[in-house]
Amino acid sequence: MRIVLIGYGNLATQLGIALHQAGFEILQVYGRDAAKAARLSTVLGATPVTDAARLDTSADVYVCALKDAVLTEVLAALPRLRGLVVHTAGSIAMADLKPFADRVGVFYPLQTFSASRNVDFDEIPIYVEALRLEDEAILLDMGQKLSRHVQVCASEKRKQLHLAAVFACNFVNHFYHLAAEILEGQGLGFQDLLPLIDETARKVHDMSPAAAQTGPAVRYDHNVIDAHLGLLADRPEMKSLYEAVSRSIFRQATKNGS
Amino acid sequence: MRIVLIGYGNLATQLGIALHQAGFEILQVYGRDAAKAARLSTVLGATPVTDAARLDTSADVYVCALKDAVLTEVLAALPRLRGLVVHTAGSIAMADLKPFADRVGVFYPLQTFSASRNVDFDEIPIYVEALRLEDEAILLDMGQKLSRHVQVCASEKRKQLHLAAVFACNFVNHFYHLAAEILEGQGLGFQDLLPLIDETARKVHDMSPAAAQTGPAVRYDHNVIDAHLGLLADRPEMKSLYEAVSRSIFRQATKNGS
Repeated sequence: MRIVLIGYGNLATQLGIALHQAGFEILQVYGRDAAKAARLSTVLGATPVTDAARLDTSADVYVCALKDAVLTEVLAALPRLRGLVVHTAGSIAMADLKPFADRVGVFYPLQTFSASRNVDFDEIPIYVEALRLEDEAILLDMGQKLSRHVQVCASEKRKQLHLAAVFACNFVNHFYHLAAEILEGQGLGFQDLLPLIDETARKVHDMSPAAAQTGPAVRYDHNVIDAHLGLLADRPEMKSLYEAVSRSIFRQATKNGS
Repeated sequence: MRIVLIGYGNLATQLGIALHQAGFEILQVYGRDAAKAARLSTVLGATPVTDAARLDTSADVYVCALKDAVLTEVLAALPRLRGLVVHTAGSIAMADLKPFADRVGVFYPLQTFSASRNVDFDEIPIYVEALRLEDEAILLDMGQKLSRHVQVCASEKRKQLHLAAVFACNFVNHFYHLAAEILEGQGLGFQDLLPLIDETARKVHDMSPAAAQTGPAVRYDHNVIDAHLGLLADRPEMKSLYEAVSRSIFRQATKNGS
């Protein structure tokens, strides 16, 4: 299968590497920044393309791994493509690709990607969707060459998955950041939190997050919570997040009858 | 060293097991619930005690692993102890033990504990504090038999560590819970989020949480964020948390000039 990669960001880089390693031929890497397109092309044995007119129109699949905000703008600048055009976004409906191609689909790996950090696709769930059944089969096959967890998922469900991922990844990471900020002000190292962070993640492999919950908010321990709010007196944003999340934890714990 | 364990909750259980395995003699497990004291005593080869008058007053160290809210109430009911009395709480000052003993200290393992889940203390940072230098040495020695990361930490710094731990563990776990709730409503499995949860935790071993951040809030992508808020229309609490955390992520990203 011959693939053109549209984009060279975090996801494009990691997905491109995984496809290349799985034996797919990456014909071209397309994007406006010649240096970025060239850099990723070198890794993938592909040709960098910055001029839409030079896109190979004979490819089997065009994988658009672009920021949601620029996806349609970039696609609008391309020639009409006969191959299967897929995007990799959690939050964009497959139907949004319809104006740009007849054969459209989605190839959504549920993971957080950074350009400099290689990830093992083997365990990453991949959700695919296609307008035509034969294209769905192509995407299932492509996914199964990368991962053991590939399934068909309609756009509406995929949006919910993406929303859940924002909570479980982006928001979680932000609370790591806030914890780091608290320690930084005290000359304490973020490193000391890593065993706690790891165990918190490991626990929910074996028990539900509701059952795994600990800490002062579960029983709304006013002594501890008031002391913490006092420590946050000069950080109003963190303080209001602390209160809102603690109230939410308490309500959940009460609801579960714990 | 001969130890009396006061309490039989999550932390008392895990710490008791770790001390027992490290060769410490656990004389007694004290608490009001005879069945719970007996159960943990069996595991630790100790004697269960529910009557404060029967506490062994010859022990070297009394480890009070109690909920913050009941700590002083339980201690007030004990006979005057000659040994070293320590608590294990992140948020309670060492000075709060002074009314109950002359030799007081703190032995704080920075971790989340569930009774049913054994943890390896080896990697857990332990923060100790004692009124007397010779007691500090006892606690450092006790800690070093359990963990490779033991350090002296004054009460004020320990409170900040505990606050950071609430963000990095309890709040993080709550966002796992909210993600699980979103998926549950869609007939999707929380299991599918585990590779994402694991990678999110692994990333901050190698990069700062600020550098690791991804997702729509970093650039405040209105299209995605508005769509997510729409999906949360009938969950007002989750919606307001989504907005508050997204704004906080965006402000942090802007501050870092990313």
